[in-house]
Amino acid sequence: MSNTEIWLESLITNSPQEGRELAIKMARKSMSAIQTDAETRRKLRSDYANDTAQLIASANVIAIEFQTVAAANNYWKKS
Amino acid sequence: MSNTEIWLESLITNSPQEGRELAIKMARKSMSAIQTDAETRRKLRSDYANDTAQLIASANVIAIEFQTVAAANNYWKKS
Amino acid sequence: MSNTEIWLESLITNSPQEGRELAIKMARKSMSAIQTDAETRRKLRSDYANDTAQLIASANVIAIEFQTVAAANNYWKKS
Amino acid sequence: MSNTEIWLESLITNSPQEGRELAIKMARKSMSAIQTDAETRRKLRSDYANDTAQLIASANVIAIEFQTVAAANNYWKKS
Amino acid sequence: MSNTEIWLESLITNSPQEGRELAIKMARKSMSAIQTDAETRRKLRSDYANDTAQLIASANVIAIEFQTVAAANNYWKKS
Amino acid sequence: MSNTEIWLESLITNSPQEGRELAIKMARKSMSAIQTDAETRRKLRSDYANDTAQLIASANVIAIEFQTVAAANNYWKKS
Repeated sequence: MSNTEIWLESLITNSPQEGRELAIKMARKSMSAIQTDAETRRKLRSDYANDTAQLIASANVIAIEFQTVAAANNYWKKS
Repeated sequence: MSNTEIWLESLITNSPQEGRELAIKMARKSMSAIQTDAETRRKLRSDYANDTAQLIASANVIAIEFQTVAAANNYWKKS
Repeated sequence: MSNTEIWLESLITNSPQEGRELAIKMARKSMSAIQTDAETRRKLRSDYANDTAQLIASANVIAIEFQTVAAANNYWKKS
Repeated sequence: MSNTEIWLESLITNSPQEGRELAIKMARKSMSAIQTDAETRRKLRSDYANDTAQLIASANVIAIEFQTVAAANNYWKKS
Repeated sequence: MSNTEIWLESLITNSPQEGRELAIKMARKSMSAIQTDAETRRKLRSDYANDTAQLIASANVIAIEFQTVAAANNYWKKS
Repeated sequence: MSNTEIWLESLITNSPQEGRELAIKMARKSMSAIQTDAETRRKLRSDYANDTAQLIASANVIAIEFQTVAAANNYWKKS
């Protein structure tokens, strides 16, 4: 556990915009949990940033993560 | 943060139709968060707008984003 | 806004069957929001109507859209 | 409307097993809504029944449809 | 109906672990509902058990089925 | 049942970070439920860890599993 970065302290964010940023971070962290080598990830990055099918698949992941973040924040509605 | 555009102030919209427009915007913004170069995105656009598999995958993302927007708006039901 | 068709006035339908029809419409409208040229869409249509992988992917989108419509209608249960 | 079959009267079923059957029917009806020719569908059927990737994708659709059916039936719990 | 096996009596399980097992069963039963020939399924099985893309797609189905099972069991929380 | 490892005692975790770890474990366990041979899985691993499309698909599974874990934990909100 000692070398594990704590990157997800909370699902609560101040705004929907910050919630989007968190959702993108969650999607990225999943990929780095599987491909743990940062240098390899850097090389792979251009593979998907220039491939629309993979950009769309990435957007699908972000959309799912955002559902969770939005629900956690009660959709940022005033209570 | 200074150069980050705030594009998602709220998930609340006036109507289902506007909710769809927001869902489409959310899907597009995810793609531009990954492929940050506007010129590259413009070139890539024809790749997926003429490929039915990618059109369908894009519609899948929009459907997921719309679930979130619709829930945030309590499905636009009169309360 | 003047040339934008309002096609989604409400998520409320009279029956599950009409809810399915709306879900299919939502899926189609997403595709036309990305590929805006009707003639191109007409040409592309045979690409996916004869490709089972794409038919299944389309059914996936419809299933997600229907989740939203069904929830909005409280699953058409008598209240 | 006259030639439209009403196949989805209700999302309520007597048991989880019947709910699965409805979910499978919903997935199939989506495909026939897009590929409306029964003969073509019959020919296409062997394409996906023998392709594991497409079998898995079909199972994905059924899983999503079943989520909706199960929620509509309050997971068939005694109330 | 006479030759239809009743395999889904209930979504309620004693533990999360049993819930996972049910989710896996649900995913498998969907595939056998489409490809009804057991011998064909047996032959197809090595196709996807050795293809990581298909293993991941299968895991996606299990994850969706498990969402339903977990919700049905109120996440196995003490009430 | 005797040789079945119990790996999912509970969906409850102490923090969102631990919830992510559980979601990743759930995704991996699904794959090993299908491809039961550990040696084969080890060989297959490099297939997807170096293929961005499969990394993204894996992240999709993790996102879905995390939705379940997060809901089970009421999004780790103080009650």
